[in-house]
Amino acid sequence: MKITILQVGKTKDSYIEEGLKEYEKRLQAFCSLEKITLKESTGAKSKQEQIQEESKEIIKKLSSHKDHKKILLDISGRALSSEEFASTIKRIRDFETGKIIFIIGGPYGVSDTVRKAVDLRLSLSKSTFTHQMIRLIFLEQIYRAFTIIEGKKYHY
Amino acid sequence: MKITILQVGKTKDSYIEEGLKEYEKRLQAFCSLEKITLKESTGAKSKQEQIQEESKEIIKKLSSHKDHKKILLDISGRALSSEEFASTIKRIRDFETGKIIFIIGGPYGVSDTVRKAVDLRLSLSKSTFTHQMIRLIFLEQIYRAFTIIEGKKYHY
Repeated sequence: MKITILQVGKTKDSYIEEGLKEYEKRLQAFCSLEKITLKESTGAKSKQEQIQEESKEIIKKLSSHKDHKKILLDISGRALSSEEFASTIKRIRDFETGKIIFIIGGPYGVSDTVRKAVDLRLSLSKSTFTHQMIRLIFLEQIYRAFTIIEGKKYHY
Repeated sequence: MKITILQVGKTKDSYIEEGLKEYEKRLQAFCSLEKITLKESTGAKSKQEQIQEESKEIIKKLSSHKDHKKILLDISGRALSSEEFASTIKRIRDFETGKIIFIIGGPYGVSDTVRKAVDLRLSLSKSTFTHQMIRLIFLEQIYRAFTIIEGKKYHY
């Protein structure tokens, strides 16, 4: 299985980077993981302009991942339990192309064009998290999903 | 405003501890923060026994925080947006005792006795997080709530 994380802006906090490394290492047992980091449009004149510029770059990257299932993290998307999320991953692994690209937008989110270009919009919470911390939370969820799929013990 | 975090088991991962320190520091501007860490019942013979033992200790601590609003993090609780969570904190600060104790259970959660002893059960997500990572996610939410209450800029 191949999993790609498409994100906007470098990970700034060292503690988040450290947590990410831990889960990237653990995930090697289950999938090949690719990470694509787009530049944050810090030169944009407004929030809207930043969203538009970053979303354009996201769309470009999606077009070079045509055989991937496209899943966007979006606060207004569908909330899944960890078990439901695991089933989704398993289905794509076993009955579809076995490739997923997860999209995590920038600080202000993404445009409707991106929303329409994806196969699934996934909401981790009704609460807003920083677009940095969501990376860590979400990578842990992917790892948890594989432990559920494989029936591997993962407590704590 | 006084905020107490009642949690079970030490924070094991250094990157989570580092993130917690960052938000503890930032929160000093808004409230006094107390942290109580109960021992994890690692000697318990079963999951159920561990839940019962840890929950007994939680109840003891709650009884010495009688004038505090008691809020339990619980996957089956109410999901609030960050804005709704901020309103809840503001109401307690401005119109009630100004003291909250947040309870984060151990690896297997808490007993129904604890569920019944609290004023509010709050769910951050339909997904399961580790009881360690939830500390970081949740402290960030408390900080975010205060920035919303105070109209302070907090982006990223």
